[in-house]
Amino acid sequence: MATTFVIAQGGGPTAVINQTMVGAVLDARKRHPGAHILGARHGVRGIRDGDYVDLSAVPEEQLLRIAGTPSAALGSTRDKPDAAYCDLVLAGLKKQGADAFIYIGGNDTAGTQEILAEAAGGSMAFVHAPKTIDNDLVENDHTPGFISAAEFVAGAFLSVDLDFRALPGIYVGIVMGRHAGFLTAAAAAWRFDEDSGPHLIYVPERAFSVPRFIDDVRATLDKHKRCIVAVSEGVATEDGRPLVESLVPPDRLERDAHGNLKLSGGDLGLAFEQALRDGLPGKRARVDTLGYMPRGNIATISPVDAAEAFEAGAFAVELAGKGGGSVALQFDGKKAVMRGVPLASVAGKTRHMPDDFLLPDGNNLSDAGMAYLKRLAPAKYEVGKPFV
Amino acid sequence: MATTFVIAQGGGPTAVINQTMVGAVLDARKRHPGAHILGARHGVRGIRDGDYVDLSAVPEEQLLRIAGTPSAALGSTRDKPDAAYCDLVLAGLKKQGADAFIYIGGNDTAGTQEILAEAAGGSMAFVHAPKTIDNDLVENDHTPGFISAAEFVAGAFLSVDLDFRALPGIYVGIVMGRHAGFLTAAAAAWRFDEDSGPHLIYVPERAFSVPRFIDDVRATLDKHKRCIVAVSEGVATEDGRPLVESLVPPDRLERDAHGNLKLSGGDLGLAFEQALRDGLPGKRARVDTLGYMPRGNIATISPVDAAEAFEAGAFAVELAGKGGGSVALQFDGKKAVMRGVPLASVAGKTRHMPDDFLLPDGNNLSDAGMAYLKRLAPAKYEVGKPFV
Repeated sequence: MATTFVIAQGGGPTAVINQTMVGAVLDARKRHPGAHILGARHGVRGIRDGDYVDLSAVPEEQLLRIAGTPSAALGSTRDKPDAAYCDLVLAGLKKQGADAFIYIGGNDTAGTQEILAEAAGGSMAFVHAPKTIDNDLVENDHTPGFISAAEFVAGAFLSVDLDFRALPGIYVGIVMGRHAGFLTAAAAAWRFDEDSGPHLIYVPERAFSVPRFIDDVRATLDKHKRCIVAVSEGVATEDGRPLVESLVPPDRLERDAHGNLKLSGGDLGLAFEQALRDGLPGKRARVDTLGYMPRGNIATISPVDAAEAFEAGAFAVELAGKGGGSVALQFDGKKAVMRGVPLASVAGKTRHMPDDFLLPDGNNLSDAGMAYLKRLAPAKYEVGKPFV
Repeated sequence: MATTFVIAQGGGPTAVINQTMVGAVLDARKRHPGAHILGARHGVRGIRDGDYVDLSAVPEEQLLRIAGTPSAALGSTRDKPDAAYCDLVLAGLKKQGADAFIYIGGNDTAGTQEILAEAAGGSMAFVHAPKTIDNDLVENDHTPGFISAAEFVAGAFLSVDLDFRALPGIYVGIVMGRHAGFLTAAAAAWRFDEDSGPHLIYVPERAFSVPRFIDDVRATLDKHKRCIVAVSEGVATEDGRPLVESLVPPDRLERDAHGNLKLSGGDLGLAFEQALRDGLPGKRARVDTLGYMPRGNIATISPVDAAEAFEAGAFAVELAGKGGGSVALQFDGKKAVMRGVPLASVAGKTRHMPDDFLLPDGNNLSDAGMAYLKRLAPAKYEVGKPFV
């Protein structure tokens, strides 16, 4: 059994990624008294560079305080190691005498673990523990981090909808989500009557068209006297290109080191403002980019999410004892359960919203989509219906 | 004594403006059994148009649910009545046999009440009850609505700061605030150690210069390895013009019916992105407009704010019995107290951040500024210090 653990956190932080880290540390201590537990700073980069914090003896009280704090306490990284980088990471792990490496992250992180496991050839256990606000990991019913982010988005849109009942107009909120629309869809979770917004929801799973968008907004204004729109930063046009690419001058498009287009900055918001100005001149319209607000917000940590994330960490230690794999948060029809699945089944794959979660015309959720959201994020506030 | 009350809500909604409305209704019922209490829909517009909801007999349970719900349940308006409009409003009030009109809003709302009181010549009582997330009413220590919005902003910046400890870079969050920087300053309220962001705070009370901003960011990156910036949408350049005016092409500038420049849309965010791209090329930078998120967010309603807002409504009924005036939330050195002040002392005036709340170089808060924030919004979460 493993007695030296290395733990790291990768990708975009969440509100509960530290729960998973602390869940793993405390479970490893319990199962393996005297275990040596190292936290690598900034993901695989810390392993490559030998930059660790020794978690073996950090007081439990301190760890629990960290567990309740959003974002990655060990730091994170966007590095996607190639073969040469993986060799360095493997050498780093061996140098520490690691028996298991638990890496908390999304599908890229699972991919890194798959490569490392192959290269290590069974000499140590590689475990991927899930986290992502995007909720886009296959094999998972939902992912730790999603519910907290979803509740932020649900509360924000409920609040903005109330605001626009008082002072009518058009509101567009741009929500993180490159390929999967789950977090944007969460805007609808807390609608409380037939009049409630968001009235329109656009996700990357459906082609976006500006003329259709303007028609949709116009029809909504006729019906509701206001129009609340939730849109994913990653919405794409019919030809599969990100909307931002067709709206923004090419010289202003930004890409990261992996060639990923920067999606959600001012450019997309401005493009929406412009489209509304042109398509519905004279209408009061406001566009906000929610940006980083939802992903690790300390005010909206869901206790359910926190508990599941902690459990995922503990389960990762159990999987390490079984040779490794990916922790999957599945649904048994009644409740969420942790299961071990092969790294290869999660690595590099993206889970999209199921087709039947969306209405055919692609601008709203179906009953099935709403049922899924309401199961994960049931209404939290009792709303007094306004008089207008 | 007044037995027919008209109540209305004006200006931008807040998280607790319904507390004030319900506080007034319930107190009027208690002091004046059998009172006729009318809620005007969409502020003075509802009085002008005869559009009311009868609040005399709405069940207390329903009212308390509304009190706990953000935004203006009676609807709001941006109308600033001129003399002719005021005549119509006064006629409308007389038609209802109103003994008192309680109008909940900011300094424009107080201004409307002052004009109406003058025109009515003592025939009925006009009361202004304060609300604004901007915290910019003179005579007030702070205003109902501010603390809830401030806590949203404090939590958002605490969270983003933790995010950027994990994945370093530059973050700029643009916060509502046309003339007063209180809400932007609130970003600093929950800093928990010497390293905490926001590291730079720019408010309308100090002239903003792009080159100095770039220098400030560069110096912060050297010191903290990341840079978190809170900036008011209303920051202005040395010549007193809004920053957005000097950064955005004139044909894209938008103004509302009152000639107020639209400040916080994508344009300003984009301008900051551009400034950072030019001034610090190659640095990871992210700009979010918090926009509507803070102002009536259901997830961050402060119980203190809610209680004070309710009390302000009740006190408005008391003032109505004394001939009218403006409810002021003052500080007696130990606690917040309600006092009545003349409408004229609040109407149309803007309270700015006191000079000594800001450091001389204008990019951060002084100890006095921090003490004020910490008195109103003491730390709410115990943060576990990250390992990076």
